[in-house]
Amino acid sequence: MKVNGIHYRPVWQAADGSAVEIIDQTKLPHEFVVARLTSMADAAHAIRAMLVRGAPLIGATAAWGLWLAMREDASDAGLTSAYEALMQTRPTAVNLRWALDAGRAKLAPLPAGERVEAAAAFARHVCDEDAELNHSIGRHGLEIIRAIAAKKPGQTVNVLTHCNAGWLATVDWGTATSPIYQAHDAGIPIHVWVDETRPRNQGAFLTAWELGNHGVDHTVIVDNAGGHLMQHGQVDLCITGTDRTSANGDVANKIGTYLKALAAHDNGVPFYVALPSPTIDWTLADGFAIPIEERSADEVTRIPGRLDDGSIGAVTITPEGSKAANPAFDVTPARLVTGLITERGTAPATPEGLLGLFPERRAAGED
Amino acid sequence: MKVNGIHYRPVWQAADGSAVEIIDQTKLPHEFVVARLTSMADAAHAIRAMLVRGAPLIGATAAWGLWLAMREDASDAGLTSAYEALMQTRPTAVNLRWALDAGRAKLAPLPAGERVEAAAAFARHVCDEDAELNHSIGRHGLEIIRAIAAKKPGQTVNVLTHCNAGWLATVDWGTATSPIYQAHDAGIPIHVWVDETRPRNQGAFLTAWELGNHGVDHTVIVDNAGGHLMQHGQVDLCITGTDRTSANGDVANKIGTYLKALAAHDNGVPFYVALPSPTIDWTLADGFAIPIEERSADEVTRIPGRLDDGSIGAVTITPEGSKAANPAFDVTPARLVTGLITERGTAPATPEGLLGLFPERRAAGED
Repeated sequence: MKVNGIHYRPVWQAADGSAVEIIDQTKLPHEFVVARLTSMADAAHAIRAMLVRGAPLIGATAAWGLWLAMREDASDAGLTSAYEALMQTRPTAVNLRWALDAGRAKLAPLPAGERVEAAAAFARHVCDEDAELNHSIGRHGLEIIRAIAAKKPGQTVNVLTHCNAGWLATVDWGTATSPIYQAHDAGIPIHVWVDETRPRNQGAFLTAWELGNHGVDHTVIVDNAGGHLMQHGQVDLCITGTDRTSANGDVANKIGTYLKALAAHDNGVPFYVALPSPTIDWTLADGFAIPIEERSADEVTRIPGRLDDGSIGAVTITPEGSKAANPAFDVTPARLVTGLITERGTAPATPEGLLGLFPERRAAGED
Repeated sequence: MKVNGIHYRPVWQAADGSAVEIIDQTKLPHEFVVARLTSMADAAHAIRAMLVRGAPLIGATAAWGLWLAMREDASDAGLTSAYEALMQTRPTAVNLRWALDAGRAKLAPLPAGERVEAAAAFARHVCDEDAELNHSIGRHGLEIIRAIAAKKPGQTVNVLTHCNAGWLATVDWGTATSPIYQAHDAGIPIHVWVDETRPRNQGAFLTAWELGNHGVDHTVIVDNAGGHLMQHGQVDLCITGTDRTSANGDVANKIGTYLKALAAHDNGVPFYVALPSPTIDWTLADGFAIPIEERSADEVTRIPGRLDDGSIGAVTITPEGSKAANPAFDVTPARLVTGLITERGTAPATPEGLLGLFPERRAAGED
């Protein structure tokens, strides 16, 4: 999508082919900084330190990480150690595993001398495929927004979203935001309630920045506010992303998603989850088996932002001596999810719903 | 309760009788500063600039403000002008009006020469009565905690609370915290999950500070985390305060309370609300008639705290050009509330439940 009128993706091969470039998302929304990754270690750091984040973008960056690794050591041992190093960066991210498994499967049979080129081709393919996937998700989600808009002609459709499942979390379009961008581009009047999404404030930092740069009307709210807005008819639908969806339609996503799904359910507000099918974990019958990453307490106790002098700093909000806990994700049970918007269409959040869109998985299940 | 081992209230008459002293809550949790109020103007400023906050504490400070005013001018004109000046400090605070009306009614019939002493006695009475009210709430809440502790002998009871309904908002004990302090003092192993409570972070700033100073084990979490903790059996009960409870048991409280009540209900976690009976609005049959204050967007976009150099500052978290909305309270429907803990005992959150504890209101309703 656009930044200052120029189309960007959040990860790309440098124009001279010498490196990978990313938008350093730790600097947003205050500074727009492009970072160069010249080694596999750079790529691993970018994922671990969340210069890039969001399941699909983590996968894409890991694919480019394999390319950087093959430039350093294209031997079998090099491939194995790169696979393992990259896999350790974000254990919850199923896209990471998918990209690394697919990349290794592509590269392993090749002679070492062909692996660098093949890794670059693979990474490009991962990126283009993700952009296409997200565009398809948006096309299906747009139908849902159109149907709601048709019921309130001339009025604005209000969407609530949590965290950043935007183009900055993917390679283009985003997942949850793809229907929003496509509705906006189609001229449907749309307004987005953006949960700030503590502790890392990806909503306030990234989603608001994205939407603003693309010209989409939006309002930032604290994570506490969405239930009240739903009680008062100010939300027509919720759309979030997901890091991992189990085969029964349970959805692991940024901490707090579950609370919004509860409020949506309590108020009859449709709650959709947008996801590319690679984030479906067909091996998991139940989302509560998904391990939840416990991240650093510092993310709770310290909040970064722009100081009054314009520089970037942070404030500590807790008293000395107070502990903090930081579970990073929660699991929203399928019963609270109105539908799963995938690249093949929208399905009920049930095993049958998902298998209806992905019948090849039914056969796989029978093996 | 205790600060560094010494018992404090958030407002008191100085030991030498020469002034009123308060804890300057605008400095918490980063600095513990006692401010001296030596004039009625000082008291008015302390209320207006929110050095003291919380409905009961505002009333108590206003009562001490009348004493300071009578020292300056105990004439009828002095009493009238003090009443008016103090009433202007926080015009919507119900306890402020109550304390000033009651104080004026007590002082007006007296000869000027007796008003200084009478004002001090009245202020002491307001404070002691509030402390006693809250102590009674805690006594009844303690029974609930004891019953939970009995079901898990030797294990810690985990309480989740939202915002600050602690002793800093009252004269002593707090409302939601009173059962917690009494359980702790009774030797029941207790741990409190403290919602940071965006946008004003009263949980992280005040509740965590209070609990830490009294020696109560606690962990600060983002407002998004409570649902996940409840899904995983890490919360035994929730206790919050309330700004206003309708006659049917709907509860208006800090924004986000409703989301925690939904999660508690979904996970079979008891959700209690602690309240002194003066906050029951018997004239309201339905909590959704309670007007919700929309506060400044700055509270969402800017977060104050301690900078790395130790000074107090703030960070801006939203991109330039992004709007923010800030509804300050939400209403939790009575169906999600397990019980209302009052100074007379714990009642179901129903009209009959409340009238059972306050039968004199039944007679009033029949008038």
